[in-house]
Amino acid sequence: MKVADTAGGEIGARLRAQGQAARAAAAGMARAPTKVKNDALEMAAGRLEAQTPRLLEVNAADVEAARAAGLDEAALDRLTLTQSRIAQMAAGLREVARLPDPVGEITGMTSRPSGIRVGRMRVPLGVIAIIYESRPNVTADAASLCLKAGNACILRGGSESLRSNQAIADVLQAALQEAGLPKGAVTLVDTTDRAAVMELLQMNDVIDLLIPRGGKGLVELVGRHARMPVLKHLHGVCHVYIDDRADAAKAMAIAINAKTQRYGTCNTMETLLVAKSRAAELLPPLAEAYGRHGVELRGCALTCALVPSALPAAQADWETEYLAPILSIRVVDGIEEALAHIARYGSRHTDAIVTEDWGAAQTFLREVDASSVMVNASTRFADGYEYGLGAEIGISTDKFHARGPVGLEGLTTQKFIVWGDGHIRG
Amino acid sequence: MKVADTAGGEIGARLRAQGQAARAAAAGMARAPTKVKNDALEMAAGRLEAQTPRLLEVNAADVEAARAAGLDEAALDRLTLTQSRIAQMAAGLREVARLPDPVGEITGMTSRPSGIRVGRMRVPLGVIAIIYESRPNVTADAASLCLKAGNACILRGGSESLRSNQAIADVLQAALQEAGLPKGAVTLVDTTDRAAVMELLQMNDVIDLLIPRGGKGLVELVGRHARMPVLKHLHGVCHVYIDDRADAAKAMAIAINAKTQRYGTCNTMETLLVAKSRAAELLPPLAEAYGRHGVELRGCALTCALVPSALPAAQADWETEYLAPILSIRVVDGIEEALAHIARYGSRHTDAIVTEDWGAAQTFLREVDASSVMVNASTRFADGYEYGLGAEIGISTDKFHARGPVGLEGLTTQKFIVWGDGHIRG
Repeated sequence: MKVADTAGGEIGARLRAQGQAARAAAAGMARAPTKVKNDALEMAAGRLEAQTPRLLEVNAADVEAARAAGLDEAALDRLTLTQSRIAQMAAGLREVARLPDPVGEITGMTSRPSGIRVGRMRVPLGVIAIIYESRPNVTADAASLCLKAGNACILRGGSESLRSNQAIADVLQAALQEAGLPKGAVTLVDTTDRAAVMELLQMNDVIDLLIPRGGKGLVELVGRHARMPVLKHLHGVCHVYIDDRADAAKAMAIAINAKTQRYGTCNTMETLLVAKSRAAELLPPLAEAYGRHGVELRGCALTCALVPSALPAAQADWETEYLAPILSIRVVDGIEEALAHIARYGSRHTDAIVTEDWGAAQTFLREVDASSVMVNASTRFADGYEYGLGAEIGISTDKFHARGPVGLEGLTTQKFIVWGDGHIRG
Repeated sequence: MKVADTAGGEIGARLRAQGQAARAAAAGMARAPTKVKNDALEMAAGRLEAQTPRLLEVNAADVEAARAAGLDEAALDRLTLTQSRIAQMAAGLREVARLPDPVGEITGMTSRPSGIRVGRMRVPLGVIAIIYESRPNVTADAASLCLKAGNACILRGGSESLRSNQAIADVLQAALQEAGLPKGAVTLVDTTDRAAVMELLQMNDVIDLLIPRGGKGLVELVGRHARMPVLKHLHGVCHVYIDDRADAAKAMAIAINAKTQRYGTCNTMETLLVAKSRAAELLPPLAEAYGRHGVELRGCALTCALVPSALPAAQADWETEYLAPILSIRVVDGIEEALAHIARYGSRHTDAIVTEDWGAAQTFLREVDASSVMVNASTRFADGYEYGLGAEIGISTDKFHARGPVGLEGLTTQKFIVWGDGHIRG
């Protein structure tokens, strides 16, 4: 992604005004009672449903323009709203309304020798900016999570979806106003000028957190230029390691599920590691199963010797997120070599071991540096809903603040609170 | 602080090699059992004590060179090591050894409908870089916290203290080796070239967290250029608000303690806000007490009318961290105006209300956006030791990850762990 320097001039001034409005709205959102936030989300759901014909009409204009501009079919599909997708958006808003409100929770309140009591109170982050691709449903999904966690948000969707996003943002703003909340709590960057992105990345005086949701190019650009904290997910090169003492049936089930249950998701296994002692027994039947699913195999020399259908893997295969029915396979001496491979080639997203050995499981859990580490479970479980977070704004492969699937709690922070009764420091 | 572009060439290559060594050492530290980490800290304490004559000699060379270069007396004092300061460093290392190890703690383990069990395991951050001023004791203090939390650290102290820092780092490295830990877990940037700082700020491939400890210029530079997460503390403009329903004795005690117990600390009150209904009763005796402490008062018009000794406050006074016996005072209509003043001029560090009114206390606790919010207690309590963290690497006024006083926990992160028994996703 190539962008100009910051926008300056008119766009810059408009964005800064929008930022100030968001900052002011954030104070109102932080104060908002749970019921009022839930009411706004319910009202937004009702309004989305009621305005379905208008949303479809506006979206059709976006799709038509994008098709004329030559957008590919997969992207056109993501851009397209249908009656059922709008119903899903509305259902999503109602689900978020039903989630527990994280704001105000007080934890760890303890009495200190000085007599003061100290604990932490969970509070909203403030203003969250989200940069995403041309998927209009993200407008409602992302905004609803930010709002429920008591934040204001600034949304910057892909340029092809501008009309659709604006229509959805209008619905959200109307619902906020109806509930008595500041409409500045959800605003859309209303220009497709890419310099606006650079401008946003500099606005660390008003934006507390930036979440890029998009391709690697966007995420890297944001990581390089953002002056505020960023919550991001670069890519998912997930591993399953079948250990010496793996149960054969569990190993087969997990290795097949982690690859074939869905191909295009970030928690899909991209590399299978197999302990040498189990390779001759497990690789041929696994290869047969992958063959039935149409998965192309790329293996190390030992793998290719055991699996005639496998192509030789190149160095690049170990670091590639295929997002496709392709799997790289490597035979390793044992857990130490598996850990070294994951440390070198993994993306710190999700890695799993299949083993019945207590010590190996503990070693793997402790030593793999990833946002999710699993024993005897498919990497496909790495997901906010599966983990019970109730929602997911994304999966963070950063180590800071929120790591792994991020739900409402990741959109909040904590402050220390101190209760005294006239206490002074001696 | 003015710096060149990144160092490039020889310095750049050396720093990158140092970064790679730290990354490798971090893996060893993450694996290290608690007892081994504690042993290393105890050994370092013993070695510091044993090498006191050599440390004093090396430090004397630093002090002499700095004095010749015209460093002021306060800075020379911070640079100087004495027998008692070395003993304090050693005692500090032993204290950190006695703190509970945060690494490995598992929390929130729950069973999900799918049958998997999900929780979070606390793990080290990895490599932490710390940039600090010419205070040699920080070398031991900061390194000990990083090591206990299972991290490797790269230290960049002020150039005047290079010889002293190197001698202390040598002691720490020898202790690490003696305990069987990688000596790359503590390394010092061994050049006074300021371009090295810019180089560090770009090394987001090996540095997981950067902590600047120094003046506003350094912290702003880091915030502008760092490509990794930063934990920082910009400044502390702390407020005490005396509410309509404040207890007079508590208000007097807290307002005097928060200002006069120490002047140069970031949690010292810099602005006193007083509800109009209490100004005539409380400001004259407070002014008398401040007068006895030699505190200069700068007030709003109402304050000046009630306190003849007060000078008129200028706009800049409300945003100034004096770090000196100076106090700005403003009379406000009530809590709403106090909250607005704090939101506008505060630095989000620590703010306190004095009140016997339940509702006002709750409003203040909820609405003040600061790392510490207090009721009926002196702002001077905002401190890692007072809060029971056992140690403090600094106070974060950022909202992300760690906020307020940061102890060992703030130098760690969490990862999700999943326990299954062959579970696959349906």
